[in-house]
Amino acid sequence: MKVALIGLGSVGRGVAEMIAKKDLGLKITGIADSATGLIDDDGIDVAKVLATKKKTGKCGNPKITAADVIKKADYDALIEVTPTNALSGEPATGYMKTALARKKHVVTSNKGPVALHYKELRALAEKNGVAFRYEATVAGAIPIMHTLEHGLGGNEILALYGVLNGTCNFILTRMADEGLTYEQALMEAREMGYAEADPTYDVQGIDAAIKLVILANTIWGNGVKLGDVDRTGIDLLTADALRLAEEEGCTIRLIAEANPRKKLIRVSPRIIGKNHPLVTEGTLNALTLETDMAKEITLIGRGAGSIETASAIIGDLLFIQDRYVQRA
Amino acid sequence: MKVALIGLGSVGRGVAEMIAKKDLGLKITGIADSATGLIDDDGIDVAKVLATKKKTGKCGNPKITAADVIKKADYDALIEVTPTNALSGEPATGYMKTALARKKHVVTSNKGPVALHYKELRALAEKNGVAFRYEATVAGAIPIMHTLEHGLGGNEILALYGVLNGTCNFILTRMADEGLTYEQALMEAREMGYAEADPTYDVQGIDAAIKLVILANTIWGNGVKLGDVDRTGIDLLTADALRLAEEEGCTIRLIAEANPRKKLIRVSPRIIGKNHPLVTEGTLNALTLETDMAKEITLIGRGAGSIETASAIIGDLLFIQDRYVQRA
Repeated sequence: MKVALIGLGSVGRGVAEMIAKKDLGLKITGIADSATGLIDDDGIDVAKVLATKKKTGKCGNPKITAADVIKKADYDALIEVTPTNALSGEPATGYMKTALARKKHVVTSNKGPVALHYKELRALAEKNGVAFRYEATVAGAIPIMHTLEHGLGGNEILALYGVLNGTCNFILTRMADEGLTYEQALMEAREMGYAEADPTYDVQGIDAAIKLVILANTIWGNGVKLGDVDRTGIDLLTADALRLAEEEGCTIRLIAEANPRKKLIRVSPRIIGKNHPLVTEGTLNALTLETDMAKEITLIGRGAGSIETASAIIGDLLFIQDRYVQRA
Repeated sequence: MKVALIGLGSVGRGVAEMIAKKDLGLKITGIADSATGLIDDDGIDVAKVLATKKKTGKCGNPKITAADVIKKADYDALIEVTPTNALSGEPATGYMKTALARKKHVVTSNKGPVALHYKELRALAEKNGVAFRYEATVAGAIPIMHTLEHGLGGNEILALYGVLNGTCNFILTRMADEGLTYEQALMEAREMGYAEADPTYDVQGIDAAIKLVILANTIWGNGVKLGDVDRTGIDLLTADALRLAEEEGCTIRLIAEANPRKKLIRVSPRIIGKNHPLVTEGTLNALTLETDMAKEITLIGRGAGSIETASAIIGDLLFIQDRYVQRA
């Protein structure tokens, strides 16, 4: 299967590396970063491009843009892994629409377009008979979309509860384990590279809320939007609150939860028993699905990381290859 | 899709109930318990059969056997949910072979045939261009096979660690939480209906070892057999051992683990940190997969139960319907 890769940040490089390393039947025929691009219908030498990117910061020809690659390259599936813009979803949404209109499958790790334009992108994919997959947008390496689609096929999903932001989970773990204040734990998270210079997006629960919106739309198709999420962050939590929870055999986690019967969609710090499967340490993500037949199913894994996110992208690509594209 | 259901114990009744209740596009055209059977190419009234079974203990005509249903009924997929015979795998293995030879898909919860005759059954299914699926044989409602097949597609599975026997997990949880002796906890498990009168199969790790063999053959195709598993049960564990582990912030769980690089395949009580994702309470099952890209992925859920196991069977049936059988 021929693929075009748009975006060569941490995730894009991870995907390229895995495609080059593993014998997956995938050939990259187009590639682009934010400034340059490369098209070769016979297949691009990925190792060479990655070396060039590392050395020069660029992957190809400054006269070829990402839009050129998407419009002109010969590929079956577009891998869209440019940075998330949570406000407009652009330019990624436009990239995806162009590819879908060309009857190309789309695989993305980009939360913005999926949270903002799910219905439209899904409809466009269906109209053109191609796949639109976004496993990597929620909970990194955890195959949550595959589980919803196949593993729990036939189940009604009644509700979900998740730890969807690794940065917050790290901060809360450190506050609980070491009695740190929020500020101390945040500083530690920054030093470890788990938190951005401006941590708003993570600690105020925006990132978790975006993922919750993607999950809710996927499961219930109910058209919820980011503004519908009742959201409280962890930035006002005190070390005392955590200590009190610990004294009762509990702890506090930033829980994203949705339950359509209760008209509930919320991200907030919750007190939770320490033995609950959702309580995991450090930057791990976890998600519990409450279903009618399987009852509670919990998945735990890494929510971020270059190769971990590439795992989700590659799972989507192989699924498309298996389902839609004739094997040679 | 037309299905034939062989076995009307707890799992079989759960499957029948869900097929009757949910609009899944599944029609039962043949049904059999250990003494009677029923064939109706136009579709059997499942609610009526379940009521008859409840009242009389029989589901159909004593002149129609399970073998008759498998040989003569008009169906696309066989659901084989008769009791497990871990020594011979019969009569279930014979049932499955007959169906596969008729080019019928097979879905089973029956551990014996899969642990004993995996290679042969897989080869027969491939030869006849049909599916052979057995999600329900390992860890009940947890969609582990789907996760291996699709969710983690492209990943190399390096090792696995699992809590695959709910009875042992319940006993160990009670010993740790209440300071009970093994005998006291076993008695409680019997009273709760979690342990059989003869608990050997569970407490000596045989059940977990059978599931481990199924997983290892599925993942690595390495032809391991039950006799290859290095196996220690929980029946000699003392309350003292658990107390000592607890004092170190740890506990003891019966862990099934396989790591082909280390030539390791083992079921044994292991000391494990209480914060480890595998440490779950009560009868829950849990499984951690160690992979090259996604790193560690843990799945937690119910390992047994009528409707929970039906969930796995129905997931397999819908997958087959989606993949192989034309929708109306």
